[in-house]
Amino acid sequence: MKKLLDKPDDAVRDSLEGLAAAHDELLTVRYEPNMVLRADAPLAGKVSLVSGGGSGHEPMHAGFVGKGMLDAACPGQVFTSPTPDQILAAVRAVDGGAGTLLVVKNYTGDVMNFEMAAEMASESGISTETVLVDDDVAVRDSLYTAGRRGVGATVLVEKCAGAAAEQGRPLEDVAAVARRVVDNSGSMGLALTSCTPPSVGRPLFELGDGEIELGVGIHGEPGRERRPLAPAAELAELLARPILDDLGLGGGDRVLAFVSSLGGTPLMELYVFYRDLVRVLGATGVTVERRLVGSYMTSLEMAGCSVTLLRLDDELTALWDEPVRTAALCWDDRDG
Amino acid sequence: MKKLLDKPDDAVRDSLEGLAAAHDELLTVRYEPNMVLRADAPLAGKVSLVSGGGSGHEPMHAGFVGKGMLDAACPGQVFTSPTPDQILAAVRAVDGGAGTLLVVKNYTGDVMNFEMAAEMASESGISTETVLVDDDVAVRDSLYTAGRRGVGATVLVEKCAGAAAEQGRPLEDVAAVARRVVDNSGSMGLALTSCTPPSVGRPLFELGDGEIELGVGIHGEPGRERRPLAPAAELAELLARPILDDLGLGGGDRVLAFVSSLGGTPLMELYVFYRDLVRVLGATGVTVERRLVGSYMTSLEMAGCSVTLLRLDDELTALWDEPVRTAALCWDDRDG
Repeated sequence: MKKLLDKPDDAVRDSLEGLAAAHDELLTVRYEPNMVLRADAPLAGKVSLVSGGGSGHEPMHAGFVGKGMLDAACPGQVFTSPTPDQILAAVRAVDGGAGTLLVVKNYTGDVMNFEMAAEMASESGISTETVLVDDDVAVRDSLYTAGRRGVGATVLVEKCAGAAAEQGRPLEDVAAVARRVVDNSGSMGLALTSCTPPSVGRPLFELGDGEIELGVGIHGEPGRERRPLAPAAELAELLARPILDDLGLGGGDRVLAFVSSLGGTPLMELYVFYRDLVRVLGATGVTVERRLVGSYMTSLEMAGCSVTLLRLDDELTALWDEPVRTAALCWDDRDG
Repeated sequence: MKKLLDKPDDAVRDSLEGLAAAHDELLTVRYEPNMVLRADAPLAGKVSLVSGGGSGHEPMHAGFVGKGMLDAACPGQVFTSPTPDQILAAVRAVDGGAGTLLVVKNYTGDVMNFEMAAEMASESGISTETVLVDDDVAVRDSLYTAGRRGVGATVLVEKCAGAAAEQGRPLEDVAAVARRVVDNSGSMGLALTSCTPPSVGRPLFELGDGEIELGVGIHGEPGRERRPLAPAAELAELLARPILDDLGLGGGDRVLAFVSSLGGTPLMELYVFYRDLVRVLGATGVTVERRLVGSYMTSLEMAGCSVTLLRLDDELTALWDEPVRTAALCWDDRDG
């Protein structure tokens, strides 16, 4: 294992210390239990957004803590759910009295622990709503999941619902926005290489020289098939088609197209892939109204990418365009 | 070679098409010769900044085109200088009548081609100043370089000089800011893996299993030594110490600390490394007043990182904090 680390077992803690040092104007990090809090939280009267999950997907979720997105993120160990106590502590730390939206990716451990945290929050007088993100169209059930896995749509949920919360909307409205993003999103990814969790020290799975995993999960879960590497144009079609079908997208529809590196794939390749994706969408009559291309939801150093499509309406587009100021997403006004 | 590409020889062009599609609100791309132009250029009366170099270092330079940074970037083929004609065409395309600052990394091909472009620009009535960036303290001369190589300080030059230009300052002032950044910067990088240029199809160099290249260049040029991988804390010391010595930095000095992934190293490791760097600097009494941590100057998918330190003064800090709106760097106001 060749990584820039001190003690591999301390990777999450050490990395959070670096995050805190790099972005102290945006966020505060507390340890044991680990949580990343918006620097100006709690904000009285504002619905707070709390998310979290296993580490190793950076910048998700801690990189989305800040104005217009999350109030708190709870990073678990690498590819491991945060604990109920940890989630509860974060919910309490950022509670502004208007309730909390919990954004939960659909993995069994996450679902269970966020559910327990929600119950405990309720007992201590904090009302919560939970939105379950299950956008991965690759497979129905998976290694750590009943139902579809939660992947890239999480970023879009956090952005749009975060904007709604920032506007001062009540909890049920913010939750409704979040669910509308989930209902109108689909994702699929592919891996060119595996990745190595620091404490494990060996790759999660093995891929042959010219082989890719189509529909891979963000913890290296198996996808639909292993197949030979192909030109990016063909791969863009293979990722986009199942999403278009799942969402029933076609002529006249407007989407946000989101391409994320899985960590090891650099921008040059990502832009080639995005170009090809735009062509696939264009050929179906779908208009790309907004887009996001970069490393936003990753699997350590895995090479590969994922595609997420969100069917836009005027409200979701407007929420996407609202200002955001986090370590990973930052804009003041957005006009295209 | 396992990459998301269509025809490997077309990687630069295909990638530029994707960049254009992803950021049409910020920039315009023209082809043959390839150039990336600020969408609202030319800006009458504003000094324009033009940079460029081989592709493969994304987001440098195209990702820095926009308000408060570059007016134009000229991407060459992968690890290959842009041509004089290409540079001249970009200079002309963004000329606002107040002259042009050429930001040139110190590689023999780049220096020669920018020099020719500057002569041709002068013949066509456009005055230019050139700033040569040569911040890499690892080695004195290198594979493609007489003198020190130009690396991470380029990003800081483009940001600070870009802010000065945006303020309406004259060419000699903007050039003076750029030179002050160069004079007060030093950098050094290390590679954990090699990288594979698309048209070459095999790694630029080979590294043993537990081996790193200390002082590597951004085209895989040899550094100071090959040595065994060590804990990040030790590596942070090995990169920072020569820079501190070169710049004569010590107690009471304020710096901007910039850690860039070389492409394949994910954020988790980068933050661990940044944490360790802050400790090294702290132990010498140097204050980190500003910081930048992420993938900003890369070498395709190479794993590893680079450190750049810039000695700050009030003016440079203020210029760094000025608003910027590009694909890779974006903030409205900056307070820490």
